Amino acid sequence: MLSFTRSALRLKLTRGFASSTRLFDRAVVYSTNGNPAEVLRVLTYPDISPPGPSTVNIRFLLSPINPADLNVVEGVYPKKPNPADALSQFESDVDESPTFVGGNEGVARVTAIGDGIDNLKVNDMVVMVKQQTGTWATQRNVSSDDVLKLSSSQLTEVQAATLTVNPPTAYNMLKDFVDLQPGDWVLQNGANSAVGQAVIQIAAARGLKTINLIRDRPDVESLKKDLKKLGATYVLTYEDLANKTLKAQIKQWTGDKAIRLALNCVGGNETTLMARYLGQDGHLVSYGAMSKKPLSLPTSLFIFKNLTCHGFWQSQWYLTKSPEQRQHMMQQLVALIEQNKLRMTTHEIISISATLSDQEATTKIQNLLRDVGRGKILLKIE
Amino acid sequence: MLSFTRSALRLKLTRGFASSTRLFDRAVVYSTNGNPAEVLRVLTYPDISPPGPSTVNIRFLLSPINPADLNVVEGVYPKKPNPADALSQFESDVDESPTFVGGNEGVARVTAIGDGIDNLKVNDMVVMVKQQTGTWATQRNVSSDDVLKLSSSQLTEVQAATLTVNPPTAYNMLKDFVDLQPGDWVLQNGANSAVGQAVIQIAAARGLKTINLIRDRPDVESLKKDLKKLGATYVLTYEDLANKTLKAQIKQWTGDKAIRLALNCVGGNETTLMARYLGQDGHLVSYGAMSKKPLSLPTSLFIFKNLTCHGFWQSQWYLTKSPEQRQHMMQQLVALIEQNKLRMTTHEIISISATLSDQEATTKIQNLLRDVGRGKILLKIE
Repeated sequence: MLSFTRSALRLKLTRGFASSTRLFDRAVVYSTNGNPAEVLRVLTYPDISPPGPSTVNIRFLLSPINPADLNVVEGVYPKKPNPADALSQFESDVDESPTFVGGNEGVARVTAIGDGIDNLKVNDMVVMVKQQTGTWATQRNVSSDDVLKLSSSQLTEVQAATLTVNPPTAYNMLKDFVDLQPGDWVLQNGANSAVGQAVIQIAAARGLKTINLIRDRPDVESLKKDLKKLGATYVLTYEDLANKTLKAQIKQWTGDKAIRLALNCVGGNETTLMARYLGQDGHLVSYGAMSKKPLSLPTSLFIFKNLTCHGFWQSQWYLTKSPEQRQHMMQQLVALIEQNKLRMTTHEIISISATLSDQEATTKIQNLLRDVGRGKILLKIE
Repeated sequence: MLSFTRSALRLKLTRGFASSTRLFDRAVVYSTNGNPAEVLRVLTYPDISPPGPSTVNIRFLLSPINPADLNVVEGVYPKKPNPADALSQFESDVDESPTFVGGNEGVARVTAIGDGIDNLKVNDMVVMVKQQTGTWATQRNVSSDDVLKLSSSQLTEVQAATLTVNPPTAYNMLKDFVDLQPGDWVLQNGANSAVGQAVIQIAAARGLKTINLIRDRPDVESLKKDLKKLGATYVLTYEDLANKTLKAQIKQWTGDKAIRLALNCVGGNETTLMARYLGQDGHLVSYGAMSKKPLSLPTSLFIFKNLTCHGFWQSQWYLTKSPEQRQHMMQQLVALIEQNKLRMTTHEIISISATLSDQEATTKIQNLLRDVGRGKILLKIE
């Protein structure tokens, strides 16, 4: 396959050819960091080789475009993907820049198995546990350790595609820092984010109470209702935090029980205000900084209330946990989904049809990112 | 004793009387929070009663005026002392305000023992483990659990008087957050504070290396030399932190070993800059905020470097540890002092002579606080 010359390849990869039997793969790639709506391109290349020992070939069904994925493309994310060396040779431009495949999360089916693998078989549904694998592609060859087999056949493709980043972030933050018992309280901001919605639902399933903070907006009452339907105990706006009567109000809600866990994806002043509602020995866990402002807290909270501040990064969690621990967590999440206790946030599925040329597909992706911004998009690359 | 009428008491407590055989006690007290140089007063009252069961009478030898003690008087410290009810009746003013005795730390000798005490005897040297006991006094009656007997007779009064706050803060911060091994690195600001100097010495005794930050000042080179004599590995100014070559410099010093512990008593931008030199999984422990500015850190440090921020408060440590743990720590510190590995910062001893009237003594204390400010003062109330 690698003996294709570039000109022969270009000849074969015409639009007409693309609609016939699959003999090629496709990926959304980039060679330089920058604005995703400018640097992302769709690249077609020959069908990947049969898998080597301990590796599998997988075909992606759906791959989310997460905000962090766009940060990776922009080059502002600390984790850099490895270049997809096998693809660089199929690039039509002459410079020597490496080619990177975008995407971190996704659901795929195993299409071929290398030697020495006994925990996976063809047609198994898998999700990624290795970070920055490059999931915006039709097929990839990956180490069998880098994927996690889903035991359940109950999950929809959308549920499975968005299973490995946001729900585990919520699940682990509610578990790893404070030993919470049913009836305990959790405070969070950015409560309408994908993680925030998962926090509400997983907390509710565990019998935990949540006080949820959202931005004020024209339809705020309707959003409050939606989040309460998911299981939110109370929903407040950041403006409410500055209200002097809130302290007494929260005291009444909690029966003056100390709130020991607050989850933060905002930063800035809203988080400073939120932290003041944490009780003695509280923990503030940050997993994002949507305001792009630093976390700023009075030192007295640390000294006199014994506040502890942590960060949480699901990527790091996967790196430090055993396969058994990963599998156990995933089973818990799949069970919650099957019991309808954890619903995923709504996503728009964008198909990149095989009938589009690379140029047309590139335009479609770039327009999408320009128009839709950083919304909840799932790519289906045919 | 309590049958003294106020007028009879005032009659007896004349200057002439004070120089004869001790029949009264004295304390530095206040009734309202405010500027210590205005609200502190010296009050003379009859000799305290014999101790009740499980209590001891102690006579203070030396009692520091720590910055936190002044915060307590100002009313800005979260821990409030209990009023000294037995003293209020001897106040000459007619209002009903409670009387508080200032001071938290000090060394004393046991003068009388109540029933049911077997771990203390008369003449034992003790330090305080209960907070806000009110140590600026000649004598107090305290619960036997609230003092810790010093096993060593090697300590000077000054060493013993300043043993329970600053050295334990340094000792515990170097122990409770990161499992440091000889050769590991610690970063700290406010390195010339009493705690900072103890950190330098205790770290050196453990074979730990320290990078110490101080304010720039006219005699900075001489101070650097002094701190190095105490055992500081390197001493830098806050201005050095902003120097772009420092990263490479520190990398060279540490052999690129990650720094996992930073100690902070400053806050503000200096601490933000310092935190950037912490490595993966680093811990930032705050025990003060001399800049009076909040702790402000980029959220990315928490998420991507797994930074954890804690506070440390020695008062809280005493509350949560067993008598055995307190005793063990104190033995370790006493051993370091005896081995001349831990020298206390220089203090000025201020005597409040028994020949001074309350008014004269009050003026002396108030002038002292106005002139000396928050320096390292030890009170000796005769």
